[in-house]
Amino acid sequence: MDIATVVGVLFGLVVVIGAIVAGGGGGMFFDAPSMAITIGGMICATMIHFSLPQFFGIFSIIRKTIVSKIPSPSELIQKMVNYAAINRRDGALALEQEIRNVNDLFFVKGLQMLVDGQESENIRELMTLEIQYLQDRHSTGKKILEFMGAAAPAFGMIGTLIGLVKMLSNLESPESIGSGMAVALLTTFYGAFAANLIFIPLAGKLGIYSKAEVTAMEMITEGICAIAQGENPTAVGEKMQAFISHGRREEVKANI
Amino acid sequence: MDIATVVGVLFGLVVVIGAIVAGGGGGMFFDAPSMAITIGGMICATMIHFSLPQFFGIFSIIRKTIVSKIPSPSELIQKMVNYAAINRRDGALALEQEIRNVNDLFFVKGLQMLVDGQESENIRELMTLEIQYLQDRHSTGKKILEFMGAAAPAFGMIGTLIGLVKMLSNLESPESIGSGMAVALLTTFYGAFAANLIFIPLAGKLGIYSKAEVTAMEMITEGICAIAQGENPTAVGEKMQAFISHGRREEVKANI
Amino acid sequence: MDIATVVGVLFGLVVVIGAIVAGGGGGMFFDAPSMAITIGGMICATMIHFSLPQFFGIFSIIRKTIVSKIPSPSELIQKMVNYAAINRRDGALALEQEIRNVNDLFFVKGLQMLVDGQESENIRELMTLEIQYLQDRHSTGKKILEFMGAAAPAFGMIGTLIGLVKMLSNLESPESIGSGMAVALLTTFYGAFAANLIFIPLAGKLGIYSKAEVTAMEMITEGICAIAQGENPTAVGEKMQAFISHGRREEVKANI
Amino acid sequence: MDIATVVGVLFGLVVVIGAIVAGGGGGMFFDAPSMAITIGGMICATMIHFSLPQFFGIFSIIRKTIVSKIPSPSELIQKMVNYAAINRRDGALALEQEIRNVNDLFFVKGLQMLVDGQESENIRELMTLEIQYLQDRHSTGKKILEFMGAAAPAFGMIGTLIGLVKMLSNLESPESIGSGMAVALLTTFYGAFAANLIFIPLAGKLGIYSKAEVTAMEMITEGICAIAQGENPTAVGEKMQAFISHGRREEVKANI
Amino acid sequence: MDIATVVGVLFGLVVVIGAIVAGGGGGMFFDAPSMAITIGGMICATMIHFSLPQFFGIFSIIRKTIVSKIPSPSELIQKMVNYAAINRRDGALALEQEIRNVNDLFFVKGLQMLVDGQESENIRELMTLEIQYLQDRHSTGKKILEFMGAAAPAFGMIGTLIGLVKMLSNLESPESIGSGMAVALLTTFYGAFAANLIFIPLAGKLGIYSKAEVTAMEMITEGICAIAQGENPTAVGEKMQAFISHGRREEVKANI
Repeated sequence: MDIATVVGVLFGLVVVIGAIVAGGGGGMFFDAPSMAITIGGMICATMIHFSLPQFFGIFSIIRKTIVSKIPSPSELIQKMVNYAAINRRDGALALEQEIRNVNDLFFVKGLQMLVDGQESENIRELMTLEIQYLQDRHSTGKKILEFMGAAAPAFGMIGTLIGLVKMLSNLESPESIGSGMAVALLTTFYGAFAANLIFIPLAGKLGIYSKAEVTAMEMITEGICAIAQGENPTAVGEKMQAFISHGRREEVKANI
Repeated sequence: MDIATVVGVLFGLVVVIGAIVAGGGGGMFFDAPSMAITIGGMICATMIHFSLPQFFGIFSIIRKTIVSKIPSPSELIQKMVNYAAINRRDGALALEQEIRNVNDLFFVKGLQMLVDGQESENIRELMTLEIQYLQDRHSTGKKILEFMGAAAPAFGMIGTLIGLVKMLSNLESPESIGSGMAVALLTTFYGAFAANLIFIPLAGKLGIYSKAEVTAMEMITEGICAIAQGENPTAVGEKMQAFISHGRREEVKANI
Repeated sequence: MDIATVVGVLFGLVVVIGAIVAGGGGGMFFDAPSMAITIGGMICATMIHFSLPQFFGIFSIIRKTIVSKIPSPSELIQKMVNYAAINRRDGALALEQEIRNVNDLFFVKGLQMLVDGQESENIRELMTLEIQYLQDRHSTGKKILEFMGAAAPAFGMIGTLIGLVKMLSNLESPESIGSGMAVALLTTFYGAFAANLIFIPLAGKLGIYSKAEVTAMEMITEGICAIAQGENPTAVGEKMQAFISHGRREEVKANI
Repeated sequence: MDIATVVGVLFGLVVVIGAIVAGGGGGMFFDAPSMAITIGGMICATMIHFSLPQFFGIFSIIRKTIVSKIPSPSELIQKMVNYAAINRRDGALALEQEIRNVNDLFFVKGLQMLVDGQESENIRELMTLEIQYLQDRHSTGKKILEFMGAAAPAFGMIGTLIGLVKMLSNLESPESIGSGMAVALLTTFYGAFAANLIFIPLAGKLGIYSKAEVTAMEMITEGICAIAQGENPTAVGEKMQAFISHGRREEVKANI
Repeated sequence: MDIATVVGVLFGLVVVIGAIVAGGGGGMFFDAPSMAITIGGMICATMIHFSLPQFFGIFSIIRKTIVSKIPSPSELIQKMVNYAAINRRDGALALEQEIRNVNDLFFVKGLQMLVDGQESENIRELMTLEIQYLQDRHSTGKKILEFMGAAAPAFGMIGTLIGLVKMLSNLESPESIGSGMAVALLTTFYGAFAANLIFIPLAGKLGIYSKAEVTAMEMITEGICAIAQGENPTAVGEKMQAFISHGRREEVKANI
C-alpha cells in the first residue's frame, strides 16, 4: 500500500474541498452535467486513442500500484540467501516447501524453475522476458494516464466553451450572467482538478513504482540464477547487493 | 472493425451534444460559416504542409484503421502451422489452393513466393521492405492527423478573433454583444472539439494499430521464412510464438 | 510547381477573407500600422536570430520549393537507363550531347564528371557532399520558417498589448472602447493568420520537399556511379529502383 | 554557501514586495486560505507523484545545495599533490593523520581506502559507483523541483477557478465583484511567484551544482587512484588538471 | 560587428516605439516600477538558476557576439597558405614575425606552438580542448539567454497579477479602472518585448555565431597541424577547404 499516494489524494481533496466550502456555500460546485462532459469526453477520447484491452487494463494497473507492496531489497537478499543455504544443504527439491510462503507470483515462478532443475541460462531468459513485458504494460499504463491528464483539461475547456456560448446567447436577465458563467467555469475546474491532482501525479508514481518493481525483479532473477549455478549463499548475497546504493549497503554491513 | 474507436466517437458525440441540448436551445451551435473557417482553414494548412498524395492518402488510412481487422496472433500461428504441415506432406505447390482462403494481401504475397519456390533470404528481404514501407505510410498518416489536431484549434482561434473584431467594431446595440460573442466563440469550440475528440486520439490509435499490424506482418514473415527453410510445424509455431507475451503463451499451453 | 501549396494558400485566403466580409464590413481588418508591428517585429527578430545571408537565402528557398519540379523517380530511372545504354554503345564521351537536354544542375554536374572520365569513388564523394550541403541549406530554411511561425504570434500579442494599454488609458468615450479593442486584436489576428496559414505549414512542406529532392539526388548519384563502373542498363535501373516503394516498383513492371 | 541563490531569492522578494506595497496597501496580498490551496495542492500532487523518501529527501538536497561548499579545483589539486608527496615520503599510513583535516566525507572515504592499502582498481570502482548514486539523487531532486514548478501554477489556477465560481454565483452586490476577483487572482499570483522565483530556478541551480560537485568528485577519484598507483606528485597534479579549462590552468602556471 | 543583430534591434525598437507613439500619447508606456519588477525579477531568477561567474560571463559573451568579427574562410586559407610557404622557405622560426599581425588569440597561440616546434599531435590536442571549452561557454551563454527569454514573460505576468489585484481591490472610482489595468498590462508588455525581441533571438544568434567560430577554429587547427607536419602550401589549402561548402569552393577556383 503506497502511503504517499493515499495521503496525497485524501489531503488534496481536503485542501480543495476546504477551499470550496470556506466562507459558506459550495453546493454549486457539484454539477452532474458538467462532470459528465468533462469525465465522459475524457474517457471517450481515451477509448479512441487506445485499444479496448489497454483501456480496461489501466484500472488494474492503478489498483496494483496503490495496493501491492514491493519487497524491500534487504528482505529479498535475506530470503534468497536462505534459499541458497537450503539449496546447498538439502538440494533444490527442498525449496519446494518454501514456495508456499512466497506471495509474489514472479518469485514463485522463478523458484519453481529452480526446483524443476532448469538451467541458469533458460531461467534468466524467461524471467528477463517477463520483466520486459511488465515494463511494456507499465509504460502503456503511464501513457494512458498522461493522455487522460491532457484530455481532462481539454474537455473541461470544451465544456466551458459550450456553457459560455449558451450563456452569451441568452443575455436577457443580467443577474443570470454570473451564475451562467460560474457553471461554465465548473468544467474547466473539474478538468484541471482531475489532471493535476489525479492523472498527472499518478502517471509519475507509476513510473517510479515501475522502476522499483523492475529492480526487485532483476534482483530476484540475479539471485535465482546464482542459486541455479550452485553458488554459495555469500556469493548470492553479494551479486544481489550490486543493485543497492552503496550507502545503504554499508548500513547493512555495519552502522557507520 | 475497431470497436473502441467507433464507441468512443459515438459516445463522445452523445456527451457533447447532450451538454449542448441540455436545458433547451442548441440550434445556435450549428453555424455553417464558423465551420467553414475552422475546418476549411485546417484543410488548407494541411494541404500546404503535406504533398497532395499524402493529403489524400490519409482518408484511406483512417478508413483502414477503423474497418480492417488485424488477425489475432494465435490465429496466425494456427494457420501457419497448418501450412507448414501441408508443405511437409504435399510440397509447396499444394499451398496454392490455400491462398484463395486468405484475405490479407501481404499474407497472399508471402504464400505465393513460397509456392514459387523462392529462397528464404529473398522472401525475408522483400517482406521486410514491404513492412518498412507500411510503417512509413502509417508514420506519415500519424503526422498528418497530429498536424490537423494542432491546426484545428489554431483556425478556431483565428475564427474567434475575426468574430471578436467584427463584434467589437459594431457595438451600437448592447444586446447584440452577447450573441456576437457567442458566435465568435463557436469556432474555438469547433476547433477544440475536432482536435480533442477526433484528430489527436485518432493519431494515437493509428500508432497503436500500426504497431499491432507490424507485429502481425513480422510473425507472417517469420512463419513463411521458416516454412521456406523446410522446418517442421512445431518449429514454425515456436518461432512465431517469440512475438507473443509470455503470459499469453502460457495461457495457450495450459490454464495456469 | 507545387499545386498543393498554391491551392492551399489561395483557398485559405478565400476562406479567411470570406469569413471577414461575410455579413458586410471588413474594411477595418486592413490596418497598416497593425501589420507593420506584427510583420516588422517578426522580421527584426528573425534578423537578430539568424545571419544576414541565412535571412535573405530563405526567400530563394521558398521560391524554389513552390516553383521547381522534382523529377519523378520513374522518369529518372528511364533517363539513366538510356544514358547507361549510350555509355555502353558509344562510350562516355557520347553523353556530352545529352547534357544539353538536362535542366537539373546537379544531374548536369554528375554527367559532366562521367564524361570527364572521373572514377566512381570520386563522383560519389563529391555528389554526396553536395547533397549534404543541400540538406544543411534546407534545414536552416526550415528553422527560419519555424522561427517566423513562432515570432509572428508573439509580435501579434505585443501589438495587442500596446493597443490595449493605449485604449485603457483613454476611456473617456465608452463608444470608442469597442473599436479600440477591435484594432488591438487585429495584430493578434495577423500573427495567428501568418503563422498558421503560411509559416508553419510552409516549414513542413520544405521538410517534405527536401526529403523528396534528396531521394532524387541519391538516385541520380547511384545511377551515375553505376554507369561510371560500366554496369549494364538493367543493373543501373535495378540499383535505382531500390529507392522506390515496392508497390510502385510493381506498377512499373506490370499492371497488377 | 551559494551567494547567488541567497541574493537572488532575497532581492527577488524585495522586488516583488516592493511592487506590492508601492502606492500604499498590500495587506490583501496575504491570504492564508489562498496560500493553503496553492501550496497544499502542490505538496499533495508532489506526494502522489513521488515516493515518501524521495519527497522528504528534497529538503536536505536543497539545504545542501545552498549551504555546502564545493572545493575549488586548484585547492583540490594542491591538497592531493601534498598527499602524494606524503605518500611517497612516509608511505600510505602517514596519510591517516591528514584524514582528520578533511571535511568532505567522500574525500575521507577515498583517503581511508588509500590508507587501507586497497588497489587502485577497487577504489575507482567504488568511488565511481558513489558518484553515480549522487547523480541519481540529484537528478531525482531536480525532477521533484521541476514538478513543483509545474504544479504550483496549476493549483494556483485551480484556486482562481474556485474563487471565480464562488464570486460569480454571488453577484448581488456589485462592489464585491472587484474584491472577490482580487482574492481569486491571488492563488494564480502565489503559484506563478513560487514557480518562477523559487522552484524553476532552484531546479536549474541544482543541475549546475550537481555538475560542479561531480567534477570535484571525479578529480578526487582521479587523484586518489593516481596516488594508489604510486605516481609522483607532479603526475598526480597533471592528471587532475585535465578536468580544468585550459585558460584557468594557464592562470595557475603563469599570470598571462 | 554583426550587422543583422544591430539592424534588427534598432529597427525593432523603431517599429515598437512607432506603434506606441502613433496617434499621440505614449508617455504612459514608460513606467519605472513596472520595469523594475519585470527586469528585476528576471535577473533574480537568473541569478538563482546559474552560478555568479556564469551570470556575469553572459555580458561579455553577448558583447563579443555583436562586436567581434569571425574571419572569412577564404581569408583564413589565404593566410595559412602564406604561412605554409614561409615555413617551407625560411623554417618555423621565420613565422615569429608574422604572429604580431594576427589579432585572434587562438590563432596566435597555434602559431606560437608552431614556432616553438611542438609536435602536430600535441598542438591538435591542445587546440581541440580549447575549442571544446569555447563551445561549453557558448552553450552556457545560450542557456542563460533562453532562460531569460522564459523568465521575462513570467515576471511580466507576475507584475500584471499584482497590478490587477491592486486595481480590483480599489474599485471606488470607475474611471481609474482603465488606467489601473493599463499599468497592470505594462509589465506583460515589457516581458513579451524583452523576450521576443532581445533574449530569444539573441540566444539563436549566439548558436549560429558559435557554430561559425568553431568552424573557423577547426580550420585554423587543421592548417596549423598540416604546417607542423611540414606539408606544402597546396596541401594545407586543400585540407582547410574540406570545411567549406562545395559551391563556395568552386566560386573560389573559377567563376562558374
